[in-house]
Amino acid sequence: MRIIDSKDNKTLRYLKKLEKSRFRNSEGVFLIEGSRIVDQAIETQADIKMIIYDESYLNEPKNNELIDKINRFKLNFDEIVLKNGLFSKITNTKNPQGIAALCSIKENNASKIIERTERSERPVLVLDRIQDPGNMGTIIRTADAAGIKDVYIVRGSVDIYNDKVLRSTMGSIFTMNFIVASEEEIISMLKVNCGGYKIVTTSLDTDVYYNEVKYDRKTAIVIGNEGSGVSDGFVESADRLVKIPMRGEAESLNVAVSAGIVIYHVLNEVI
Amino acid sequence: MRIIDSKDNKTLRYLKKLEKSRFRNSEGVFLIEGSRIVDQAIETQADIKMIIYDESYLNEPKNNELIDKINRFKLNFDEIVLKNGLFSKITNTKNPQGIAALCSIKENNASKIIERTERSERPVLVLDRIQDPGNMGTIIRTADAAGIKDVYIVRGSVDIYNDKVLRSTMGSIFTMNFIVASEEEIISMLKVNCGGYKIVTTSLDTDVYYNEVKYDRKTAIVIGNEGSGVSDGFVESADRLVKIPMRGEAESLNVAVSAGIVIYHVLNEVI
Repeated sequence: MRIIDSKDNKTLRYLKKLEKSRFRNSEGVFLIEGSRIVDQAIETQADIKMIIYDESYLNEPKNNELIDKINRFKLNFDEIVLKNGLFSKITNTKNPQGIAALCSIKENNASKIIERTERSERPVLVLDRIQDPGNMGTIIRTADAAGIKDVYIVRGSVDIYNDKVLRSTMGSIFTMNFIVASEEEIISMLKVNCGGYKIVTTSLDTDVYYNEVKYDRKTAIVIGNEGSGVSDGFVESADRLVKIPMRGEAESLNVAVSAGIVIYHVLNEVI
Repeated sequence: MRIIDSKDNKTLRYLKKLEKSRFRNSEGVFLIEGSRIVDQAIETQADIKMIIYDESYLNEPKNNELIDKINRFKLNFDEIVLKNGLFSKITNTKNPQGIAALCSIKENNASKIIERTERSERPVLVLDRIQDPGNMGTIIRTADAAGIKDVYIVRGSVDIYNDKVLRSTMGSIFTMNFIVASEEEIISMLKVNCGGYKIVTTSLDTDVYYNEVKYDRKTAIVIGNEGSGVSDGFVESADRLVKIPMRGEAESLNVAVSAGIVIYHVLNEVI
């Protein structure tokens, strides 16, 4: 284990720079923080490059289980210990747990994922410029739980390797497949390359309720931006526009809740 | 309009103290902050005691519509203007919008609400020690949208007049009915006083999926605490235990998302 005790250390500065999504993407790595998500990264055999401990983490008995697991896996990664409170420099978490891991961004080969979608003939999810990291992570976690594997993300959405997104996904980030592309590209991938997926778009501009429609296994569920909803492209290319009934005084739903309602309804029906 | 420019002002200190749920409950009032929720309070004819402006709020043209509406309603409330940045003292919001209102806590007469539930024969919601304000508010908003009117809250849940809860409810706080009582009291209200409601409890300890069950109109949907789930009392008194299928790698769902999935499923079926 390497010990770092100076704030000018090169590795420390590198880790700090990973706060920026551009730097994450150019380096092809991202940082996760917290015992649970590090555990999930190990369990799902994520490609871990480095484990970073706060010095206090190693002395707390409650952490022994995870530390033992890390040692048992004897994976090919560096381990470093940050002293003098430096750990707080690499994370935005208010109360960091004192363990972090540097992971590789999965090489998400688009044509492989498209092939996977086509072969699976299962519903997929399209996220159209979701902005709030908590919503993004929660929707990914929900899609995972419901049985979705492939997520198509419109460029301009919040970066999925943002620390708040990662925290909200609760580990689903490691087990799902992601494609980030433009709206036009995603529509063409789904309609043409995946073998004719039906695009089901949630929208307020329709009289059709999501629970009155018959769904196909090959359905792409499009969830739109918190403020502006789905973009015109997805409305125009939709095979179905559906909305959620609003029977009370509330004018709208939280986007993660509405995604959960529609996703589970569709998956329950076709899986 | 009364102007307050000293941090020692009595009214200001009173408003500040409303941060504490005990003080809110003993005074029977709570504070809302932001243009949208103040607008909703007016629209739903909430009992507003006082409108509080940051001095800058009154000078911004985009706020004229709401200010006009407040004047038009000519309700019987005080208006005060806080100067010298004092507005930030009365709210925990990071970027307050500069308008707040002091509202009365609705006299939630339990026997009236029970009678309402009985007469309505519509599903009701039971919230069993939800702790996170964002979850609490989002669940209330979702229940409202789905068509629920009456919410039974187990004592020990986060206070619904907490500012973060209020923000997440998006105004549903003004249009729903709430009873706060002990677990035993709520079970007896539902089973006996409301004329035999069926208690449907979400739980992991069952093999029954929520979407394989036939629901009655007189259903009470119980949503449990984020960490520990529903308490033993609701498990034992449940007419049905149901769970949400987990088909992927995710081990659980966010509680507001799972509430949304079950609530909409039940309401779609029986309403």
